[in-house]
Parts: sequence; structure tokens; C-alpha cells
Amino acid sequence: MELLKQRILRDGKYPSEGVLKVDSFINHQLDAQLIMSIGIEFARRFAYARATKILTIEASGIAPAVMTGYCMGVPVVFAKKAKPCTMDNPIESKVHSFTKNTDYSIMVNSEFLKPGDRVLCIDDFLAHGSAANALIDIIEQSGATLVGMGFVIEKAFQAGGKILRDKGIHVESLARIEELNKDHIKFCD
Amino acid sequence: MELLKQRILRDGKYPSEGVLKVDSFINHQLDAQLIMSIGIEFARRFAYARATKILTIEASGIAPAVMTGYCMGVPVVFAKKAKPCTMDNPIESKVHSFTKNTDYSIMVNSEFLKPGDRVLCIDDFLAHGSAANALIDIIEQSGATLVGMGFVIEKAFQAGGKILRDKGIHVESLARIEELNKDHIKFCD
Repeated sequence: MELLKQRILRDGKYPSEGVLKVDSFINHQLDAQLIMSIGIEFARRFAYARATKILTIEASGIAPAVMTGYCMGVPVVFAKKAKPCTMDNPIESKVHSFTKNTDYSIMVNSEFLKPGDRVLCIDDFLAHGSAANALIDIIEQSGATLVGMGFVIEKAFQAGGKILRDKGIHVESLARIEELNKDHIKFCD
Repeated sequence: MELLKQRILRDGKYPSEGVLKVDSFINHQLDAQLIMSIGIEFARRFAYARATKILTIEASGIAPAVMTGYCMGVPVVFAKKAKPCTMDNPIESKVHSFTKNTDYSIMVNSEFLKPGDRVLCIDDFLAHGSAANALIDIIEQSGATLVGMGFVIEKAFQAGGKILRDKGIHVESLARIEELNKDHIKFCD
């Protein structure tokens, strides 16, 4: 997605090897117009998939997921990172955060993912694939069917994308980064 | 907003006094079409305010805030609940959660709220006003100007709305609830 790549080149920061900060337009401050363009693009790429539900993780996944849900006309469920006192019957899975070097649980109320649902996962980043694998685990536990996974940015030099594609999952990343060093970024073709 | 009130009547749950669960369409599963209607309505009510930025809190505030930002053509900043290792120069404030009976900090990178910014706050719920007051505190620390506060749902039987309006803040709540008991809800006129 050319608009996104240009924006990463203009406003992204890469302070050290492997680190990309997009907090001025994707995951702290949001450019709502760009996020809508992202939602339109995901809706176009997964139009064939007949998704009945979009699944993401709070907090950074919510904005692209809700725009995609709006464009596709399907509800969005966001997995929560801590059990709210009001959640009954959660389906849980574990995520390892490489950035913070901690494990945390994510959970979805089983009421909102059912056998028969065709689920499209949307998230901001794909790197090692830990969060993506937790979403897949939750979908499997629910009995629903995964139909695809869309990521705003993929760090293609880390293993997540290969792991998911090797499982036969249709993965779409709007900006795939091949190299990321201090003050240097290179996208895949 | 009639569409929202009808949806609360149809799909909201009020299991005990003062508790309203809207997790099937607002804050766990999201009806993206409804959230867009909410964004359009906030944009209409605050069109006069010449906001340059929208401020909300992760996670439930993000979806209505990003739709409002899209409709108004302004960027959205969401306050984070824990300090990510990548945030420099945070502006912090404290929120008391009555639901969970805990205090937590929220923070915004000072880069994204500047003197000269005209800030519209958007959040899902207004109850005691603790989160709202923390957002006001952050705006004051940043030197920006608060131009209004929009809430999807206001529990008008709790003190937050009165506190904010008594400060002279323009508050808009799309559904104001006067009474909320087990299996009984009444909206303000």
C-alpha cells in the first residue's frame, strides 16, 4: 500500500536495529483518514473471504479493525488483555511480548465467537507472530474458522509471517519491511 | 441519539443496580456501523468547536474517537494505561476505577498535545468522571485548550456529568441514563 509506505518513510522513526516507531500516525496518535484507507484496503483484499467477524487485540489493533469492519459490514471483536470483572466464559490464550519481555493473557467472551463464524484477524504489527498465534488459538478453541489475517506492518525479517504462511493462512500485510536499521528502512518489493 | 438508545434497550444488559453492559456492541464486540453513526453525531454536535485534535483513553474509547476523528478530519490521540518502553516525555495523570476499585495512570506523549491545540475528548462512558478529569488534567499540563467532551453513554445518576458541566465544559452524551436497576432502564428526556 503505497500511501502507507510513503507515510512510514516520512513519519516513522527507527531509532535502533529492528525497532520501528509509528506512534505519530498508527498506535498512539492516529491519522484517522489513513486508518480508513487501511480499512478500505483490507476490505478489498479480503472481500472474497466472506468474513462474518473481525478479531483484533486491544489497543493498537482496534482502529484498523473497526475501519475494516465498517467497510466490510461485519462486527469487530477485540481481545482484552486483562479479565474485566464483567466477562463471563472467557476463551483465553497467552502472548509473549518481545518488546517488553513479558507474557500476558488475552481473552474473548465466548459469546462473540461461535462455530460457524468466519473470522478475519486484523492487527497493527506482525513480527514474531506471538499475538497472531494467540488469536489463532482463540479461534480454534471457539470452533470458528479463520479465513485470513491482515497486518498494517509486517517485519518480514522476523519469523511471524513465514510461520503463518507455512500454515496455509492467507496473510496480507500492507507494508512489508525487509530491512530495518538505525536511520535505514527497506521495504520488500 | 435515538439509534443508540434503541440499541441499548435491545442489546444492553443491566444485571444489577447501576451496572450497564454494552459489550455486545460498544466495548468488546463493536458494531462498526453504529460506531460510525456515533462518530457522525459527535462531529455534528462539535462542528462549531474547531477542534484540532481528539483525545481518548485506550481501549474502549478508541473506536468512537477514531470515527469522530475521521468525520471531523482531525488526528486522534489515545492516552495509554501503562508506559510503553518507547514513550519519551509522557504527560501523566491518575484515574480511579470504581468498577475495579483500583487506581491507574494514563499518559500521553507530550509531542502529540501542544499549546495551540483545541482538544475534543471522546470516551465511551461518563459515570463518576474520574477518567474525564484525568484527561482534563493532561490537557492542562500540555498547555492545550479543551473545547468539549463527548460520551457515548452517560450515567446521569452519577456525579461526573454535573461536575464537568459546572466547570463550564460543553458536554454531549449520546444516551443519558437517569435510572438503571436490575432489568429496568430509563433515559433522561
